[in-house]
Amino acid sequence: MTIKEKLAERSQEVETFLQGCLEGRGFPDRLRESMEYSLMAGGKRLRPVLLLAFNRLLQGDGQAALPFASALEMIHTYSLIHDDLPAMDDDDLRRGRPSNHKQFDEASAILAGDGLLTEAFGFMLDSALERGLPATVVLQAMRMMVRSAGCGGMVGGQVLDMNMTGRSGVELDELRAMHAMKTGALITAACACGAILAGADLDDLRRATAYGKEVGVAFQIVDDILDVTGDEASLGKPVGSDEAQGKVTYPSLVGLERSRSLAEAHAAEAVRQLGPYHGPEREFLEELARYIVERVQ
Amino acid sequence: MTIKEKLAERSQEVETFLQGCLEGRGFPDRLRESMEYSLMAGGKRLRPVLLLAFNRLLQGDGQAALPFASALEMIHTYSLIHDDLPAMDDDDLRRGRPSNHKQFDEASAILAGDGLLTEAFGFMLDSALERGLPATVVLQAMRMMVRSAGCGGMVGGQVLDMNMTGRSGVELDELRAMHAMKTGALITAACACGAILAGADLDDLRRATAYGKEVGVAFQIVDDILDVTGDEASLGKPVGSDEAQGKVTYPSLVGLERSRSLAEAHAAEAVRQLGPYHGPEREFLEELARYIVERVQ
Repeated sequence: MTIKEKLAERSQEVETFLQGCLEGRGFPDRLRESMEYSLMAGGKRLRPVLLLAFNRLLQGDGQAALPFASALEMIHTYSLIHDDLPAMDDDDLRRGRPSNHKQFDEASAILAGDGLLTEAFGFMLDSALERGLPATVVLQAMRMMVRSAGCGGMVGGQVLDMNMTGRSGVELDELRAMHAMKTGALITAACACGAILAGADLDDLRRATAYGKEVGVAFQIVDDILDVTGDEASLGKPVGSDEAQGKVTYPSLVGLERSRSLAEAHAAEAVRQLGPYHGPEREFLEELARYIVERVQ
Repeated sequence: MTIKEKLAERSQEVETFLQGCLEGRGFPDRLRESMEYSLMAGGKRLRPVLLLAFNRLLQGDGQAALPFASALEMIHTYSLIHDDLPAMDDDDLRRGRPSNHKQFDEASAILAGDGLLTEAFGFMLDSALERGLPATVVLQAMRMMVRSAGCGGMVGGQVLDMNMTGRSGVELDELRAMHAMKTGALITAACACGAILAGADLDDLRRATAYGKEVGVAFQIVDDILDVTGDEASLGKPVGSDEAQGKVTYPSLVGLERSRSLAEAHAAEAVRQLGPYHGPEREFLEELARYIVERVQ
């Protein structure tokens, strides 16, 4: 099986959980529909797949961690909905379809995001309350999630990104620090939470965290590269939108060639962290790190 | 001491915790400032005070519950920031000052709300991770919080409220159901979480929940009444804004007099739930239920 097929198979597990997970809970119809519109819009499900892979690599019970993993995708989805709003990045397209506020309206999009973020914490709790993971372990993983998704992570990174957009004289270190918060933190949290929920020791947790950080940087660099060289149909959004919006990117700071070699170096460092492990989960994580650099969408 | 003085003294405990609780965490300055602008804008701190009162009524450790109680105020604050946005209720004033998006900008207001909601869950976790409450108890209380703040509670209620605004033929039952979600759920959760965090048995939890529901309805009715009869300076917002926005309210459906008697009946029912208890916390909760009906702001 190719890594793309493996990734599709694993993301299907998340897809199946997400499908219908908001039904039968007494949510107003229009709210549920707008949440599902964005949550079920496809996507690679990279974050939950990473969580489950690290969880299984370290002998965790993947089934018990599945609601927690899916919560990560909800948080990722809420952040996309809010980022696309007119007051933020003002993007009309997401994954080849109208973004949430274009399909519904701005108020619906704000509330769909708020709803997904809040309910995500409920699904994290379910890993303890319904699937039997130890309460203390789930609390630790939730703390990691708050740090990564909150003001010292994703939300803070979006603030820095907006401050940086259109400004001249941004240096690579500043760009790197912003990305570490805006996109890196949640990818790192995926790996770290997979380890925590498996009851990993500190050494394993450190390696999972390091892998996540490296893969997160590589992922972001490739995102920036694809915005220049990518194919509109594969990406589901216009090529060149970063430049049009005045965004500082890796290619704009260090050029395409150096960006590519940086991405490869980070992926190689991620793979190095997998040193002590064996078996199919290690193999998957190794292939995934390389695929993140080679992907075209 | 009058109930107003008691309330001020108890809200000071929350105020002290909230003051500076977002500092030293590596949050971007502008983000922290916009969150603090709304979080420290005064207000009665009704929800955390209710949580702590029920917690102490049932022999809980109020100090350990304090971060959890304060998280409730953060969630309440985030909901006000997002509700005031142009795409939602489009309110320029909140507590006599420019609302968050007027003081900062729309993007900041959206992110300040997202940040407060996310970090609120971190403070809930702190009641277990830093103040020693049992992990299972905190998880149970967090589940209650998700249900109350999420799509079957506050967020869902805001959706219903927006659908209802400007519509004719709304009946009292529909208004009541909307309020139970939009404002009632969080007030009820305050009382219920206070009980859960004290390790209350099911009977105590039922009484705390019932008190919260009754007080929540009374609070909302009085809010509607004050929007008609209130004093602009005390309220910190223009009188008559509900009518101007086409909001359905208790006075618009059943008149002022019947609204007042309904509010009193709900407060009396709240007090009845306190039957089995004694001591200063019971006295406070009894006076608070009556004060909620008599308040002028």
